Amino acid sequence: MATGKINHPYYPRDMEIPNYIPNESSVTEILVIFFGLVGMLLSATWLYASRMQQLKGRTITKAKICWLVACAAIHIILEGYFGVFYNTLVQEQTYLAQTWKEYGKGDSRYVIGDSFTVCVESITALFVGPMAALTAYAFIQNTPNRHVCQLLTSLCQLYGTILYFTTEIKDGFIHTKLFDPLYFWFYFVFMNILWIIIPSLCVIESCLALNTAVCIAETEELKRKAKKQ
Amino acid sequence: MATGKINHPYYPRDMEIPNYIPNESSVTEILVIFFGLVGMLLSATWLYASRMQQLKGRTITKAKICWLVACAAIHIILEGYFGVFYNTLVQEQTYLAQTWKEYGKGDSRYVIGDSFTVCVESITALFVGPMAALTAYAFIQNTPNRHVCQLLTSLCQLYGTILYFTTEIKDGFIHTKLFDPLYFWFYFVFMNILWIIIPSLCVIESCLALNTAVCIAETEELKRKAKKQ
Repeated sequence: MATGKINHPYYPRDMEIPNYIPNESSVTEILVIFFGLVGMLLSATWLYASRMQQLKGRTITKAKICWLVACAAIHIILEGYFGVFYNTLVQEQTYLAQTWKEYGKGDSRYVIGDSFTVCVESITALFVGPMAALTAYAFIQNTPNRHVCQLLTSLCQLYGTILYFTTEIKDGFIHTKLFDPLYFWFYFVFMNILWIIIPSLCVIESCLALNTAVCIAETEELKRKAKKQ
Repeated sequence: MATGKINHPYYPRDMEIPNYIPNESSVTEILVIFFGLVGMLLSATWLYASRMQQLKGRTITKAKICWLVACAAIHIILEGYFGVFYNTLVQEQTYLAQTWKEYGKGDSRYVIGDSFTVCVESITALFVGPMAALTAYAFIQNTPNRHVCQLLTSLCQLYGTILYFTTEIKDGFIHTKLFDPLYFWFYFVFMNILWIIIPSLCVIESCLALNTAVCIAETEELKRKAKKQ
């Protein structure tokens, strides 16, 4: 492609992306593989959780474990790939690079190595992903630290996603194709707003559960002190 | 000042900052007022907390209340001012604008309205500041929600500051005067690393306290169930 001509599908249209090579796979292939793998992971986790005696009849907990396992996989594998290869992925043809090149049509910060995006994704891959896995394990085992783990994981997801949206709003949506059904509404809005809605609910749930636990623990402490006296 | 000439003290040196007007006050005046006000607030809070019967002898809790009150004031007033006036502060001579113009010598993202900086500071002013005030109140009153409040406040401070440092590291420290004793080490490193160290300790403390509370609450729950049977 001739130098100076726009050789990429990203916004803003006049931006230059040196070394960009279009995806070999079609959009359908990329999306089918992505949602297929996520669907398989969710199904496998659901089946595994359903076999656990301690999770019998606890539909919300099982759904949450599925969510956390999917989060862990997406954070560590997909976002981890971005954190490591953000500088070169526009010229790569691996499945993960092609996924990011496709997603970049909804947010070009992923194909230009935007500093905020690289940092928030790297932190998510390094810390929030493993924390999500640990939280899933804590809910499977019903350990006492499950709500603290969930609060840490969900609050980081929530804060990261709020920053992700607000920085793009502040930039005037220049990195996306505003109001495009696939790129804007599906990739940019829907695929991220999930990480606002679900973590918000998880944060509220854990705050309430932890407050209740503190109330019970303090009442017991007072009772014990009263007995001693 | 002639157009095209560098008319400002910020980094990178070749950056243009239209409408920049140098501070009327001296650096000493700005810093003495800032640390004087923070010092007065810390002292007043310490004296107030020391008069509280329930805080007698609890030095760490009193120190934490002082920290949280100072955080609330800095987040809401100083960072709130930045969140509202980031676009025009380079030409203003209010005390807060001059403080940001001075601080900008250690991080010019504050004088160019960098998107990430504006968003993280606005969220801090709007949510983390009031949360810090609420947490201080919860510790003064010793309410059961004090550790959940502390965990929410401190984790947001910690995540925001980690992003603040990592984005500048990723940018190659272009917005600061690298290794300058005042601008780099004092403004950029010291004045921010406090929000890594103290929130980290608070997060750990709250996680441990909340886990202990859950353990006690669950043991009581088991006892109660056993009694019923």
